[in-house]
Amino acid sequence: MLLGRVTGTVVASQKEPLMEGWKLLVVRQLDAENHEAGGYVVAADAVGAGVGEVVLYATGSSARQTETTKDRPCDAVIMAIVDTWEIGGTEVYRK
Amino acid sequence: MLLGRVTGTVVASQKEPLMEGWKLLVVRQLDAENHEAGGYVVAADAVGAGVGEVVLYATGSSARQTETTKDRPCDAVIMAIVDTWEIGGTEVYRK
Amino acid sequence: MLLGRVTGTVVASQKEPLMEGWKLLVVRQLDAENHEAGGYVVAADAVGAGVGEVVLYATGSSARQTETTKDRPCDAVIMAIVDTWEIGGTEVYRK
Amino acid sequence: MLLGRVTGTVVASQKEPLMEGWKLLVVRQLDAENHEAGGYVVAADAVGAGVGEVVLYATGSSARQTETTKDRPCDAVIMAIVDTWEIGGTEVYRK
Amino acid sequence: MLLGRVTGTVVASQKEPLMEGWKLLVVRQLDAENHEAGGYVVAADAVGAGVGEVVLYATGSSARQTETTKDRPCDAVIMAIVDTWEIGGTEVYRK
Repeated sequence: MLLGRVTGTVVASQKEPLMEGWKLLVVRQLDAENHEAGGYVVAADAVGAGVGEVVLYATGSSARQTETTKDRPCDAVIMAIVDTWEIGGTEVYRK
Repeated sequence: MLLGRVTGTVVASQKEPLMEGWKLLVVRQLDAENHEAGGYVVAADAVGAGVGEVVLYATGSSARQTETTKDRPCDAVIMAIVDTWEIGGTEVYRK
Repeated sequence: MLLGRVTGTVVASQKEPLMEGWKLLVVRQLDAENHEAGGYVVAADAVGAGVGEVVLYATGSSARQTETTKDRPCDAVIMAIVDTWEIGGTEVYRK
Repeated sequence: MLLGRVTGTVVASQKEPLMEGWKLLVVRQLDAENHEAGGYVVAADAVGAGVGEVVLYATGSSARQTETTKDRPCDAVIMAIVDTWEIGGTEVYRK
Repeated sequence: MLLGRVTGTVVASQKEPLMEGWKLLVVRQLDAENHEAGGYVVAADAVGAGVGEVVLYATGSSARQTETTKDRPCDAVIMAIVDTWEIGGTEVYRK
């Protein structure tokens, strides 16, 4: 899994029927020091995340192991909202 | 999933029988600000996309979760045509 | 899927029994303008491709969805020989 | 699999129910000479690893093949604590 | 699949029970011209490879399609020892 910050939303009306009901969020990847790492994904939201929040996301087939995404064409899912993380005993981020 | 712009088409007559009927589109990856990001994929089209459109595409095993691609050797599928996306409350793209 | 040019062959006699009978080809990745993109894969051939041909190849679990590679330890397969592709209405390649 | 060093922890209370009970660790990738390679993952721990330890981790669908992660939305798992590794007959690391 | 050279070994006693019996080898990726390409993986050995040998390895879920690795948390497997490969009709490597 990777850490990311939700920065935006995507709207699509003409789509695969199995995507119906997904909230599609733009997530920018964070490095382990809480800086933007350059990449992004558009992820389905499985936990009620919103713009600005720091989240944990999974990619690949593992992104289809949530109730929201099971057997659907999803390759990135937000699976947790991060409360805090620390590196080497120092807190890097707190919600 | 990633955002991309459909820029071309691929034609192949000598192919795996399970690919029969696919429309193969060249999709250039876009970054979150709607600039071309350098990479591309050739994706099967599951939603009737055309050259010039901005789409959402999935890769890996998730690309086999649409009716068009189920149990077929597809590792990239166009699954939605994007209407609009925004970053930090600002609209980046509108169809 | 990605576009590539077959540039070589690999021979291996001491191997996983499930690989028996595969033709192993070195495929150099092409970018969307038909230039070599730097990377390569060794792919199993599912369509009778030969050295010099431009092909479409799939990677990951999707590479196991052809008759040649089903349930075998294959992560890259040549699934089509490209006749032509075009970008922005301009033909980039013709066989 | 890749070698990594556990450098931190992530806490998330609002999450996919299937993640319940996971210990989430920040793992920095190591190169083959035991230098930090730049990347990281947040991995579920299947072997009782702690901060500072050198571990082996798997990514993708293979990360769901442990008892801890089976059928759960996990794309990175710590599957072993490394005792020692050597390159070209020279010991690079010993626990 | 990719070409690589076995350069080392990894020993881990505290591990996922399903890894029991694996020989874990450090494999450096080779480019198509037989130069080291920078990356590496730690792969399970399915064919009796040893340090110094040039091998073919598969990654991702395909790495679980050998007898050694079936249903186990393996994302990289050595599946063949390379005898020879050639590029553009010129032999690049012979065992």
